[in-house]
Amino acid sequence: MQAHPPSDLFLRACRGEPVERTPVWIMRQAGRYLPEYLAVREQRSFWEMCTIPEVTTEVTLQPIRRLGVDAAILFSDILVPLAAAGIEVDFTPAPVIRNPVRSAADIEALRPVEGSPLLGKVQAAVRMLRRELAGTVPLIGFAGAPFTLATYAVCGGGSKNQSEFRAMLFGNRAAAHRLLERMTEAVIASLSGQIEAGAQAVQLFDSWAGILGGEDYEEFALPHARRVLEQVERPGVPRIYFAPGAATHLDRMRSLPAEVIGIDWRIPLDRARRALEDRFAVQGNLDPGVLLGSPETIAEKTRAILEQARGAKGHVMNLGHGILPQTPVENAVAFVEAVRRRGEAHE
Amino acid sequence: MQAHPPSDLFLRACRGEPVERTPVWIMRQAGRYLPEYLAVREQRSFWEMCTIPEVTTEVTLQPIRRLGVDAAILFSDILVPLAAAGIEVDFTPAPVIRNPVRSAADIEALRPVEGSPLLGKVQAAVRMLRRELAGTVPLIGFAGAPFTLATYAVCGGGSKNQSEFRAMLFGNRAAAHRLLERMTEAVIASLSGQIEAGAQAVQLFDSWAGILGGEDYEEFALPHARRVLEQVERPGVPRIYFAPGAATHLDRMRSLPAEVIGIDWRIPLDRARRALEDRFAVQGNLDPGVLLGSPETIAEKTRAILEQARGAKGHVMNLGHGILPQTPVENAVAFVEAVRRRGEAHE
Repeated sequence: MQAHPPSDLFLRACRGEPVERTPVWIMRQAGRYLPEYLAVREQRSFWEMCTIPEVTTEVTLQPIRRLGVDAAILFSDILVPLAAAGIEVDFTPAPVIRNPVRSAADIEALRPVEGSPLLGKVQAAVRMLRRELAGTVPLIGFAGAPFTLATYAVCGGGSKNQSEFRAMLFGNRAAAHRLLERMTEAVIASLSGQIEAGAQAVQLFDSWAGILGGEDYEEFALPHARRVLEQVERPGVPRIYFAPGAATHLDRMRSLPAEVIGIDWRIPLDRARRALEDRFAVQGNLDPGVLLGSPETIAEKTRAILEQARGAKGHVMNLGHGILPQTPVENAVAFVEAVRRRGEAHE
Repeated sequence: MQAHPPSDLFLRACRGEPVERTPVWIMRQAGRYLPEYLAVREQRSFWEMCTIPEVTTEVTLQPIRRLGVDAAILFSDILVPLAAAGIEVDFTPAPVIRNPVRSAADIEALRPVEGSPLLGKVQAAVRMLRRELAGTVPLIGFAGAPFTLATYAVCGGGSKNQSEFRAMLFGNRAAAHRLLERMTEAVIASLSGQIEAGAQAVQLFDSWAGILGGEDYEEFALPHARRVLEQVERPGVPRIYFAPGAATHLDRMRSLPAEVIGIDWRIPLDRARRALEDRFAVQGNLDPGVLLGSPETIAEKTRAILEQARGAKGHVMNLGHGILPQTPVENAVAFVEAVRRRGEAHE
């Protein structure tokens, strides 16, 4: 029997193959909770961090060195495909959009993402990262899902109620779908470009899908996410779909062409698996708030999730949402160590 | 057979008694979407609106006149019990807390709500409202639930991640429970006082419970909400419990001593009923975003909810969360009219 190098743990778990222990990474693992990240952030704008390959590489690698996680995720933002399509996105650090989409003409004015200079820079970072990682851990690419990008495109970021886009959904659904189709093209181009440059898995973040009721999720979010996932199918490259706050819609996700579904922390992992009929590997789902607590609580709740994952098609440990900026670094380390210590073999 | 006056529709539906049509009211029905409310708001601070009985009465009655809803809800804020306990709450209009609870001494320094001047003013408004309403529609009192009040008490309002309270939950659960117990006493005093003054139903809003995973909801939110609901049981006064964003925890709510459970719009009403095993009347659950859309969409989606409610123990139509400030008034009217036109008889 050929021994699998541990660097493959994450990809094998995504594919539902046997693993000797549960792999772990953390959403937003490169971020404001890390002092070395904040040191870079003081010198660089957010866009510089996303577009200068050396800087992107440095911040992407920081959590690998610090935490010993089993996957790297490209440092970037879910809104990069929007920016590549010609929408001006600033980070203050919350995203602000200077020219939100408000008319049919605005939709028509969106530029193709394929071949855009911004995508070129992201691809250069992916190539540099693959060289630097040198096979130690795989590299995940990502983008926002079409519904989420459209929400930002219309509302302009910083919107409390997403009212402008919701008015469009329920007042002019034809326009909403036209915009969603353009977003879909942008996301396909972005993820395809990342894979082409060397991303070994991709995650689609539908961060705003949780504002939709079930039928509307099925009309406005799901079909566009499905089209993206279909179009980025590549041999050996797992596709992860994650819609935080949408745990009540897991049954509707069963038809998605993905290998992994990310699970929000508001649903127990075993119940999520039942809703998905165990057709997918699952990723998650520790409450990010737990990492603000004691190491004992972190270990205990991590263990409970590993229990609930037993018998899953595959399990990638993660939080149920991005790590909070207030998280003490040692607690992130305690989480990763709890998984390394207790992660069961899946055979 | 004695004819029921239509003014009783809401209370009968809450109790699971037969009704000739589904009653309807709207969470935050007195609020920023109403021009007549904004006119008062220009002249008065938020606290004046909550503490001058004539002003409270005026804004409480505005939506009754304008929309023809089947219940009035006292104009107030979920945080009034906190303020009555001695925590300084400002509204800008989002709540800001000047002296958040950060220590055991802060918890001990909280004052009893029973007999507080603020509660006295709220009671005066309730009495005035009952006289003015003169039996046309019943009056609902309300308060935030203990978990939600504790979140505000610790985080101070305007917190994006509730990180300070989550750190306490997972790092010092004994302190968290002590605070939750004090909040429970404050809420019991507040709701009891409202009922004593004439409130004919009470709603407990657990607005932040949706940040908790299932087990933590069961530990930190549910038992304290249960104690409140037990203590405010009065003959003929329905108790409504509503935790937006917590639709994945409905099965855990089955043991609550309440007559009505409010349903978030992210779960179909029929599935919510199954999770609750139809032990309660249900309230809700139109997506508030739909009221930003077209009258046709409003009518169609309202009809779908009335369908899903068929056979329920009782049904009170409402939104699945508070009405959005951006809502056109005519759309709120269209919603109420759609219910009046299509609301089925429950016998």
